[in-house]
Amino acid sequence: MKLATLRNGTRDGELVFVSRDLTKAVRAADTIAGLATLQQLLDEWDSYALAAERIAAELDLATGNGDTSRLPLFAFDPRLAMAPLPRAYQWADGSAYINHVELARKARGAEMPASFHTDPLMYQGCSDVFIGAMEAVPVADEAWGIDLEGELAVIVDDTPMGVTTADALDHVRLVTLVNDISLRNLIPNEIAKGFGFFHGKPASSFAPVAVTPDELGSAWRDGKVHLPMLASINGKLIGRPDAGVDMTFSFADLIAHAARTRRLGAGTIIGSGTVSNKLDGRPGKPVDEGGAGYTCLAEVRVVETLLTGAPRTPFLRFGDRMRLEVRDEHGASIFGAIAQVIVRSEGA
Amino acid sequence: MKLATLRNGTRDGELVFVSRDLTKAVRAADTIAGLATLQQLLDEWDSYALAAERIAAELDLATGNGDTSRLPLFAFDPRLAMAPLPRAYQWADGSAYINHVELARKARGAEMPASFHTDPLMYQGCSDVFIGAMEAVPVADEAWGIDLEGELAVIVDDTPMGVTTADALDHVRLVTLVNDISLRNLIPNEIAKGFGFFHGKPASSFAPVAVTPDELGSAWRDGKVHLPMLASINGKLIGRPDAGVDMTFSFADLIAHAARTRRLGAGTIIGSGTVSNKLDGRPGKPVDEGGAGYTCLAEVRVVETLLTGAPRTPFLRFGDRMRLEVRDEHGASIFGAIAQVIVRSEGA
Repeated sequence: MKLATLRNGTRDGELVFVSRDLTKAVRAADTIAGLATLQQLLDEWDSYALAAERIAAELDLATGNGDTSRLPLFAFDPRLAMAPLPRAYQWADGSAYINHVELARKARGAEMPASFHTDPLMYQGCSDVFIGAMEAVPVADEAWGIDLEGELAVIVDDTPMGVTTADALDHVRLVTLVNDISLRNLIPNEIAKGFGFFHGKPASSFAPVAVTPDELGSAWRDGKVHLPMLASINGKLIGRPDAGVDMTFSFADLIAHAARTRRLGAGTIIGSGTVSNKLDGRPGKPVDEGGAGYTCLAEVRVVETLLTGAPRTPFLRFGDRMRLEVRDEHGASIFGAIAQVIVRSEGA
Repeated sequence: MKLATLRNGTRDGELVFVSRDLTKAVRAADTIAGLATLQQLLDEWDSYALAAERIAAELDLATGNGDTSRLPLFAFDPRLAMAPLPRAYQWADGSAYINHVELARKARGAEMPASFHTDPLMYQGCSDVFIGAMEAVPVADEAWGIDLEGELAVIVDDTPMGVTTADALDHVRLVTLVNDISLRNLIPNEIAKGFGFFHGKPASSFAPVAVTPDELGSAWRDGKVHLPMLASINGKLIGRPDAGVDMTFSFADLIAHAARTRRLGAGTIIGSGTVSNKLDGRPGKPVDEGGAGYTCLAEVRVVETLLTGAPRTPFLRFGDRMRLEVRDEHGASIFGAIAQVIVRSEGA
């Protein structure tokens, strides 16, 4: 089952089912009485899941046989997509790819404690406003060091405090793709203050579509997504790391970590952190040199610094375009692409 | 206007208007067509505000004249109250009382940078689950160092990125009282990791009632609440600091800080941090010695350590009762009391 939220003038948009090939959609409200938003589906998953799966199957059948369904289908346009949850009650973002953590800390001149290999990093992100996959990203100042971060995320249902890693994956309802926009030059001061990220992690962007884990087939195993994350800047590929490789903490680990001292409400989004591969015992290799590259510019810059003494690639400027996508082994896009531009914020 | 949310079996409860004296209530849905929850009121404040103010005024009149109103009134029972927003899209908690920051850091053996007097501390808290004023607080382990924190909070409407301190207070819709439950013994490790609080700040509790700023009269000025915060443990008063004193950063400062790199969605809750007074140039004085005391045990313990070399007061145990309340100059409770007990979490 693939799901998206389309703009309809309301804060929470309207929930639609999207065909596996991302070409067609049907409104949830047109097919299931009373179901209007994704949060509502997550709040009452058990009530709606059977009917929803049936509509999704019929939609895929109709797309395959040339649209002879009685469903009120229409063409799916990702430009109309809001984030699947345009606002959420919780966004808890892990940092499961240790290579990213190591490189990000090298960039700040910080040591990497041994405990980071056993105790996941996770921060509480803002979730009151999320950005749609093809919406512009407003930033007030280029000097803040604007960066993308390619991440995967799961959306869970009600998860009890103290859930074990063995039980954690039973709570995963959906998987999606995130651009965790970061303002690098604001982060060192925030980290020094001790309260974690705040200004450095403004609103994140989400892929047009969130999918149930079965849509990933065998690529979803061990609580990881075993597919490459493709990252481009202004049309140039900068990364294609495999999200199933070097993920030190699986989504099972991250969910259990998040729920250690409290229960998680339905619709909580748990992020993987920036996908990053440490290959051949080195901190990765640029795509141009045949490597897996990077899904954030901070890593590009720290590797440039390690290799040549200084970063060569600037952070993002107004007008720069970012693209993140995950494709299956046949090249088909799973979640649709995040494809967006940085713009100057109009401000208050 | 005073508002509360009562349990009705749904996740978001039902919005009620509460009389100024906290004795009577009337359901929003019984008086204003289509208005069911507090989030909905915050989402569409301009549409509902006039009608809502009219109902609130009629309710106060009816309470004053012996209930001769045609409103379907009933007795307000704070035991049925959920948090005013039982879940929210954002909980951004400042730390505006520098005395608390100074004492909390002394307790951890950390220095206090000079910048803390000009650059507010703020962390992103979890908001997917909030606890009602008289609900039990589940914690899995007493060894985590369970503590209360008495705070005030404002709830804002849509606030643009880059809002100035001059404009920030125009966005305040409601004021309320928070118990920012903290797990002290988990915090030093989290702070050391650099990503801020996560396990150390589980679900917070809220007063039964949130009020529009006009309900505070002249006590609401300069973006501060000029009234004492009363804190008790197991029936013994431990603090009565004035929330208008030593608040280095007003709510105007805190809102502007929160919105520096992003807009804030309607219903965002901004916390003051633990109310704490630094009187007579000293870190405060216990209530027993005629001082203002403290609204968290961390401060009690660090002052004990400063005075006698070791903390004497333990953190909270299962069965311990906390109470927080703000009363006006006539002794009337503004928000109702947070009065709750720590219980052992049943776990997963």
